[in-house]
Amino acid sequence: MLHFSASLTRLLGELKKLPGVGEKTALRLAFHLLKSPANVHALAESLVEVGSRVRFCSTCFGITEADPCHICTGDRDSALLCVVEEPQDMLAIERSHSFKGRYHVLHGALSPLSGITPGQLNIRELMERLEQGGCSEVILATNFTVEGEATALYLARLIKPLGIRITRLAHGIPLGSDLEYVDLATVQRAMEGRSEV
Amino acid sequence: MLHFSASLTRLLGELKKLPGVGEKTALRLAFHLLKSPANVHALAESLVEVGSRVRFCSTCFGITEADPCHICTGDRDSALLCVVEEPQDMLAIERSHSFKGRYHVLHGALSPLSGITPGQLNIRELMERLEQGGCSEVILATNFTVEGEATALYLARLIKPLGIRITRLAHGIPLGSDLEYVDLATVQRAMEGRSEV
Repeated sequence: MLHFSASLTRLLGELKKLPGVGEKTALRLAFHLLKSPANVHALAESLVEVGSRVRFCSTCFGITEADPCHICTGDRDSALLCVVEEPQDMLAIERSHSFKGRYHVLHGALSPLSGITPGQLNIRELMERLEQGGCSEVILATNFTVEGEATALYLARLIKPLGIRITRLAHGIPLGSDLEYVDLATVQRAMEGRSEV
Repeated sequence: MLHFSASLTRLLGELKKLPGVGEKTALRLAFHLLKSPANVHALAESLVEVGSRVRFCSTCFGITEADPCHICTGDRDSALLCVVEEPQDMLAIERSHSFKGRYHVLHGALSPLSGITPGQLNIRELMERLEQGGCSEVILATNFTVEGEATALYLARLIKPLGIRITRLAHGIPLGSDLEYVDLATVQRAMEGRSEV
């Protein structure tokens, strides 16, 4: 590629750093961009804009352009705090319109194998928020992976002494799914958590 | 998304214009970029660089930073001309190190259904190059799709009167493939084109 254009080779290198983008995809994206100079310009501009404007909220560590973010300053129920791993998890919950409290983004989950310890997550900041009082329930919405479950367990032990109610999202059959294709463990959890009609 | 950040929403819009990037992938890319500000900057910079430096060669219409490109000015066999649909096809042939002549990029293939007519491809420029003389063989390396085959046929008829040899890449079984998984038509073509051992 070097023979064709040094700047194109550099762009390919940058594109390959993106998740799920390999040699072939990078080439496809680059050639697509080459065909539409207006898009190249717009993409570059919006990258610069995001790079300079978007930051993390100093209270909840979610994504925002104004600090503190509109959720931390907005008219939300401050007695409810939802703890998530990543900003995109916060987005997923916001999209569901099922939660009217505030958030706290850990920016990761405990993972001793990858060397992620409590000190690298925003756990100290979470405890400081909780110790200020005013919060009656913490929803631990970390992922349902080994790391997410471990993080939830760790946080639950840490928060318990504060006398705050600690909850976790319900397990069960996803909406619209065929029972025969749902995995064993999920069916077991759904059976345990069955409710009166 | 709008509530979180206007600039992020804009970036998502730009990312979704890329081929194979939908809502979910755009989100994944954007959040990945947010986590590495250095990459955002480098990507934006290399986009701007590509946008300003990379152009099409005025002779072969391939991708280049210098016009004419290094293949058109280089020490190549000018009696051989390989006609391809897109710059990436040129790249594929260059990578194979199997061709030492020059190229001509059509930037598309004839497709009446999509409204692509001969006037929209670099066919007039191809004929001008051939009429200048010095070329003894044209390799029609358009894709083996309906559009590519039609384009090759169209070009063959156009070039025939010039008395230049016209060839097409060989059909056959791809290297390393299991005969049982190769499609019927390819096996037929490979049988027709069988060669003495």
